[in-house]
Amino acid sequence: MRQSFLFTATRREAPKDEESTNAKLLIRGGFLHKEMAGAYAFLPLGLRVLENIKRIIREEMNALGAQEILMTTLQRKELWETTNRWDDKEVDVWFKSTLHAGGEVGFGWSHEEPIADMLKSHVESFRDLPVYVHQFQPKLRNELRAKSGIMRGREFLMNDMYSFDSSEEHHTAFYNQAIKAYERVFERAGIGEDTFMTFASGGAFTKFSHEFQTIIDAGEDKIYLNHEKRIAINEEVLNEVVLQELGIRRDELVEVKTAEVGNIFNFGTAKCEQLGLLFTNEAGKRVPAWLGSYGIGVTRLMGVIVEKHHDEKGIIWPSSVAPFRMHLVALPGGETIAEKLYGDLQSKGTDVLYDDRVSASPGEKLMDADLLGIPLRVVVSERTLKEDGVEIKKRTEADSQIIKIHDLLAYEVI
Amino acid sequence: MRQSFLFTATRREAPKDEESTNAKLLIRGGFLHKEMAGAYAFLPLGLRVLENIKRIIREEMNALGAQEILMTTLQRKELWETTNRWDDKEVDVWFKSTLHAGGEVGFGWSHEEPIADMLKSHVESFRDLPVYVHQFQPKLRNELRAKSGIMRGREFLMNDMYSFDSSEEHHTAFYNQAIKAYERVFERAGIGEDTFMTFASGGAFTKFSHEFQTIIDAGEDKIYLNHEKRIAINEEVLNEVVLQELGIRRDELVEVKTAEVGNIFNFGTAKCEQLGLLFTNEAGKRVPAWLGSYGIGVTRLMGVIVEKHHDEKGIIWPSSVAPFRMHLVALPGGETIAEKLYGDLQSKGTDVLYDDRVSASPGEKLMDADLLGIPLRVVVSERTLKEDGVEIKKRTEADSQIIKIHDLLAYEVI
Repeated sequence: MRQSFLFTATRREAPKDEESTNAKLLIRGGFLHKEMAGAYAFLPLGLRVLENIKRIIREEMNALGAQEILMTTLQRKELWETTNRWDDKEVDVWFKSTLHAGGEVGFGWSHEEPIADMLKSHVESFRDLPVYVHQFQPKLRNELRAKSGIMRGREFLMNDMYSFDSSEEHHTAFYNQAIKAYERVFERAGIGEDTFMTFASGGAFTKFSHEFQTIIDAGEDKIYLNHEKRIAINEEVLNEVVLQELGIRRDELVEVKTAEVGNIFNFGTAKCEQLGLLFTNEAGKRVPAWLGSYGIGVTRLMGVIVEKHHDEKGIIWPSSVAPFRMHLVALPGGETIAEKLYGDLQSKGTDVLYDDRVSASPGEKLMDADLLGIPLRVVVSERTLKEDGVEIKKRTEADSQIIKIHDLLAYEVI
Repeated sequence: MRQSFLFTATRREAPKDEESTNAKLLIRGGFLHKEMAGAYAFLPLGLRVLENIKRIIREEMNALGAQEILMTTLQRKELWETTNRWDDKEVDVWFKSTLHAGGEVGFGWSHEEPIADMLKSHVESFRDLPVYVHQFQPKLRNELRAKSGIMRGREFLMNDMYSFDSSEEHHTAFYNQAIKAYERVFERAGIGEDTFMTFASGGAFTKFSHEFQTIIDAGEDKIYLNHEKRIAINEEVLNEVVLQELGIRRDELVEVKTAEVGNIFNFGTAKCEQLGLLFTNEAGKRVPAWLGSYGIGVTRLMGVIVEKHHDEKGIIWPSSVAPFRMHLVALPGGETIAEKLYGDLQSKGTDVLYDDRVSASPGEKLMDADLLGIPLRVVVSERTLKEDGVEIKKRTEADSQIIKIHDLLAYEVI
């Protein structure tokens, strides 16, 4: 894509109404626009990153055998009353409104209830199980505070997956596979090393839930971690019983600040029992299905990636999620060759943003390249052409090098 | 995809609470699940159709030079008050709620206001124009009645595009290009022949807006049409002045029932003036931009396709939007060869649904194939194998034919 075509402008100054690093950098780079606290629009570059993250998640969830669906934002009061989760005293993040046709309506903040209810039309016997479904669903949550950019949204995109199994054995097996899939997602998104499966409160249904927590300074959570053994415990379940069960001493753990990028939850058979999602088992008896619920905050993940990968000059995108793999920059004297290279790179299928702007100064172009954070910068200028070359520089490295023009087309952008 | 893998079950009986053909067939086929009146979840087959429709629209809008973005559902009261469109007396489809942090919030039913407001951060001079943006945005509208399935949703997906130009000349040129792009979308989606650009009320800003109306019995609109001259007039502007202007007599027009699949609107400079989206023109003067607004109801379009293309047995998808191009059906005696063919077709990259179900009878499989409406049905059975062949049948045709097995792999699925 030609940068002159992009309508978004970069900014030198951080917006004054933002506290978080992710929002400051993403707005400065023109990835996001703030609509209101906790609600951000995705501009072309931001949408490209979001789609890359979605692609990674989609591949991993599909590989687990989960089928993609898309439920609704509008939610029925009657359904949520069944599980006592309509009441604002039980769930404090509902947005609710009134139908002109009469009655109250809610805006989806989670989807266990409608998904389990929907499956009543499709699951009759043990032969219809297991069913694994997932979706990329915009969630709306009436959060009291929203100062962490896209790390805590009133409106955000979630990938939520739900597993329905006919036995505890199958349920547990899938739950463990899902843990591995989640680990692959975070690994592929460039935060694997700093993301830890964390034991957290299981609520009424099970001993533990499992969170995926990423170490960042701006994190709103606190976990207790043994880095070497990769054992992590959320502060809410840090007690003697749990320490003993996990075979670790309190003094082997250090306190770290983290952001939760994923959460998986075992509902056992309780939720399906409440909602009446029963099936006829092999003995001919009607029994409830086993439910697992799995969520990745997709937009939050994007925020966490920025918090993790940036420097004072801007963002440093991991290649897997970068809006483009290569940033071709034409500086004075290099315009003609850059133009030709852009054509050649496009023919080759290279994912390239081409800074062809005539109005921007060399300094502005290089500052913008650092701010946008595309993994490989390729500069063409009078200076590089004297050596019959282009200057390549990785965003992660300080040093650049000159390579021959014809070598650029053979260069593997990783 | 193996049909045994799909979790959705088909139904012989239409749901009792649906009046519209599109909802009845789409629910019977397991494409949709009704969450409440006017709000439907998209199940795997339905989501595939929706993504195919989105792909067509995305290609055409990108070809116009529109950049894809994604605005928010949550809307600021203050912004919409600027244009006097917050008031329920002015706009009667708002869903509104209250923020826990204080203040009212709306749920987006249209996006001219936030998009024009957002662009104030990116457009400064005539050099920054034109800007063309589009998005696939779930819209929420508090409709009093919602009985037309996905043809009139309280929650629905829209592709909305906005053009911002620096002069009337450029603005008009783009507006006319957009008309052509819309015509290509409806053509590619299989409803081109029955879809007419229709003169409709322009409101306060311009003489006419332009609707794209598709002739269907279940349509909620009424237009006056001259089929041969392809002139169509919405009843709201059917008067002597308009007839004269368009050079047609009343008795040359017939009344037909239609559904509106697209609508384009010329705001002139009025909306940008209201919202303060000004730019510095070549003479150094601050002037408002020219705004065009273009919308396709994506989910409605899917409903209209079903209304247009079905028979008493089920849906007849146009290939371009079908959930799969080929439906391979294994009947008794054909299972082994079908299994091998499925592997071969997949290696070849054919988009195929494979009915490998062992629990379904031959009759059920064939009834389901008609209901699901995939363009090409390929049956493998003892009978076809006696002729060393498979039976192929187009969903649009009554007759089938036997072709040799090795010819199937060379068969071009259109």
